Amino acid sequence: MPGTLEELSSSKAFGGNLIKYRFKSAALGGLDAKFNLFLPANAETSNVPVIFFLAGLTCTEDNGAQKGNFLGPAAKEGIAILFTDTSPRGAGIEGEDDDWEFGTGAGFYLDATNPKYALYYKMRTHIQFEIPQVLEISGLPIDVKRMSIFGHSMGGHGALCIYLASKSQQFRSASAFAPISNPINAPWGQKAFAGYLLTGLNEAKEQYDATELISRHSDPVHILIDYGTADQFYKAGQLLPENFLDAARKAGYDEAQVRVREQKGHDHSYYFVSTFAEDHVHFHAKFLKA
Amino acid sequence: MPGTLEELSSSKAFGGNLIKYRFKSAALGGLDAKFNLFLPANAETSNVPVIFFLAGLTCTEDNGAQKGNFLGPAAKEGIAILFTDTSPRGAGIEGEDDDWEFGTGAGFYLDATNPKYALYYKMRTHIQFEIPQVLEISGLPIDVKRMSIFGHSMGGHGALCIYLASKSQQFRSASAFAPISNPINAPWGQKAFAGYLLTGLNEAKEQYDATELISRHSDPVHILIDYGTADQFYKAGQLLPENFLDAARKAGYDEAQVRVREQKGHDHSYYFVSTFAEDHVHFHAKFLKA
Repeated sequence: MPGTLEELSSSKAFGGNLIKYRFKSAALGGLDAKFNLFLPANAETSNVPVIFFLAGLTCTEDNGAQKGNFLGPAAKEGIAILFTDTSPRGAGIEGEDDDWEFGTGAGFYLDATNPKYALYYKMRTHIQFEIPQVLEISGLPIDVKRMSIFGHSMGGHGALCIYLASKSQQFRSASAFAPISNPINAPWGQKAFAGYLLTGLNEAKEQYDATELISRHSDPVHILIDYGTADQFYKAGQLLPENFLDAARKAGYDEAQVRVREQKGHDHSYYFVSTFAEDHVHFHAKFLKA
Repeated sequence: MPGTLEELSSSKAFGGNLIKYRFKSAALGGLDAKFNLFLPANAETSNVPVIFFLAGLTCTEDNGAQKGNFLGPAAKEGIAILFTDTSPRGAGIEGEDDDWEFGTGAGFYLDATNPKYALYYKMRTHIQFEIPQVLEISGLPIDVKRMSIFGHSMGGHGALCIYLASKSQQFRSASAFAPISNPINAPWGQKAFAGYLLTGLNEAKEQYDATELISRHSDPVHILIDYGTADQFYKAGQLLPENFLDAARKAGYDEAQVRVREQKGHDHSYYFVSTFAEDHVHFHAKFLKA
């Protein structure tokens, strides 16, 4: 049955468990989808809040779980972390495995409208609606009324866009490590939008560009962003966090609502992510436990 | 020049830096060897102690650095961590890439005496003598008089054997996550010894079996071991930590000198390692800062 969770593995960690699940995803055209879920010890006695973690280009549901240093801090806070995949797997579309920045491992957290991809590449729907629904019907000890979202690089783009698209109501807070913050003005984003979307940048401006979205946003938000000055992709103009910050300030959001921090000397790797992981979990915990 | 360090990359992490080095290894027959070194912030002003981390089968110098959760705890303690590789790379010996538990990625931290492997497979010498020497001549801010050693699985075997072989003087303390503790009585060890060593188990008993070594040891020791009851390799009889514990007690070592902890429900993965990483770093810090 679609949405029925199959447990693939379970590893005890930090007093809780890291469990890998698989299910038939309607959003992804019936393909198998996987995610990792860290449940802290307190999930044995009550429903716990959850933070969704969205990984970057080339990653799977494993990278953040293994390298992100999130489990210890989440265990301390008594919060679950759900690690999603970055694209459909095995769609069999011609050319989808040819590039590392497009196709498999690079779904860009959007719903494709180009017919070539539209049947399978619906990562936005998968993450924003399908997984929360699956959690709700699964009987897992997750309180889907208390969710936040964060991500790394392409996953930071996904987290910010999904948060803002949901009018910051479905998710209580968003944060990002080195996010692709203004993809309509960056090579990775332009390539992805041209490939996945029928009208390319026009659709992207409406739905898939965090800088565009924040400039039109008016509801209160809770956003934290970190990026490193030694990040090769930042230096190459793929991330553009300053554009997001400028747009947020122009839209009237102050430091209390949108905080963008430059981290001196840090690069794009999970060594950077893991350094600030505890800080981000703590940021979300404030809103999830409020 | 042999032993000259070439910096391949550097990532800021937890206030310090994770640096990958390469050098021509005399011990490994002139092949390139790599290691990762985490230097905490205080290494900028003074020489710091170091813990060597030895990884398990199939791993490289990256696994422990990326997944072990050691950097944060090491930063807090002001201690360096050095992550070694698990075998020579590119020796070109017939069949060395055929199995995951022998050859490439599976050097077993011994000095091969079988002529087929002896020119390159000298991981014991590489780690016990060559890397400390390279550190000393490199000018890196490491105090080679204050070293400890730990490892995971095959790396736990390596850490315990090198520690005991050095009469627990070169290294101040040893610890291990799910170590192969009595390899002469386990399939992985028996296969490795039969392949790498001219006289197989005879040489292994002398030098490469932690249970044999502790049974003949009389100097004071500081050893901590954790293993999980849900570990598939423990259950398959590859690890045999009880044999090590029995031998240690028979040799007169009490709980204060040799502590072996059964961790309920934990498996063999880095989720297990990362859970107890801080505890192990703290254990070594006591002796490194004494």
